[in-house]
Amino acid sequence: MLTIALPKGALLKESIELCQQVGLDFSLFLSSSNRQLQIEDSQGLAKAVLVRAQDVPVYVEYGQAHLGFVGYDVLKEKKANVANIANLGFGYCRMSVAVPENSPYRSSVDLPAHGIVASKFVNCAKEYFRSLDLPVEIVPLYGSVELGPITGMSEAIVDLVSTGKTLRENGLIEIDVLFESSAYLVANPLTYRLNTYNLNDWVKKIIKVS
Amino acid sequence: MLTIALPKGALLKESIELCQQVGLDFSLFLSSSNRQLQIEDSQGLAKAVLVRAQDVPVYVEYGQAHLGFVGYDVLKEKKANVANIANLGFGYCRMSVAVPENSPYRSSVDLPAHGIVASKFVNCAKEYFRSLDLPVEIVPLYGSVELGPITGMSEAIVDLVSTGKTLRENGLIEIDVLFESSAYLVANPLTYRLNTYNLNDWVKKIIKVS
Repeated sequence: MLTIALPKGALLKESIELCQQVGLDFSLFLSSSNRQLQIEDSQGLAKAVLVRAQDVPVYVEYGQAHLGFVGYDVLKEKKANVANIANLGFGYCRMSVAVPENSPYRSSVDLPAHGIVASKFVNCAKEYFRSLDLPVEIVPLYGSVELGPITGMSEAIVDLVSTGKTLRENGLIEIDVLFESSAYLVANPLTYRLNTYNLNDWVKKIIKVS
Repeated sequence: MLTIALPKGALLKESIELCQQVGLDFSLFLSSSNRQLQIEDSQGLAKAVLVRAQDVPVYVEYGQAHLGFVGYDVLKEKKANVANIANLGFGYCRMSVAVPENSPYRSSVDLPAHGIVASKFVNCAKEYFRSLDLPVEIVPLYGSVELGPITGMSEAIVDLVSTGKTLRENGLIEIDVLFESSAYLVANPLTYRLNTYNLNDWVKKIIKVS
């Protein structure tokens, strides 16, 4: 059966709405009392698995899900072997470099060589600073990256910014944008090529309503 | 000022209790209304930063915290350059291999060569299967690792088990234990060696009450 990987978090609601518009109802995942991680739509047309945003490309790459909704930031960080079908246009945010307001740096290239940059997006950050030929050290953090500059551990951070509220609350300002991100529809490459489960029809329908 | 990294999650309460017993009150972190990530104890003796468990070794390695409370599982996974001072004896759990109840595997060595094992603890899992000379593929997942075998993506998982409730709820059974884990006190190696902020006294006091 066609299986769709849906990401927990910021993109879930709009991903489920798109599915509903093509006739697949997975809205049970939005109920706060739901504990299931796998559900079938009421007509038995497709199944959905609810996973962490970072795990969507993994499930799609390994073929346990044939389609997935996932942010471009995750795709770029994980470099998974999935077919990037379409930019769905919602969930806009940007991957940015930020520094404390009172620091002397106003651009990435101002950062000191061998300075420290904290990030959850280690691959994105490494790639970006390599492209600038700036040999900074990227320190991986899992949570509250903004603590890096606050505690003095790092000169800067690379993190996702949507409204900018978290940065402002922590006295940080954006000085550069690595790339802009929004939700993408991805597919398992083999399933897509062989058009198993009429995948192409589903893809066309989802793109049409997006 | 002496700075202590405290881990969010399962080890927080007991870590804070140990600090209280040596005269450092960081219980504000246990209040549900608290939004601060850095606080000073009321006597101005020390500061605490509240970070993700996986980030504790990073803050201690980079010297932004001089002491940290962290699970042995995280230390083993992250291989951070910190001094492992003492096993504090609380927060017991174990890193285990688990498979679906109805699978034919009853030991790690039964797993098929080139089988797939899903885990959040990629380094621990790799090291373990390498020691068995079993060439399995380790697939990194961030959340709900038990979905790996349920969806058929992986033959097994490597994950932390404390009560075993999550495994049972998902029809999985433990077949091997990689290692046992509990909370450790770690220190920044240089601060510890130089005894900055009288670190050795604090360490002795914490060990004494643990």
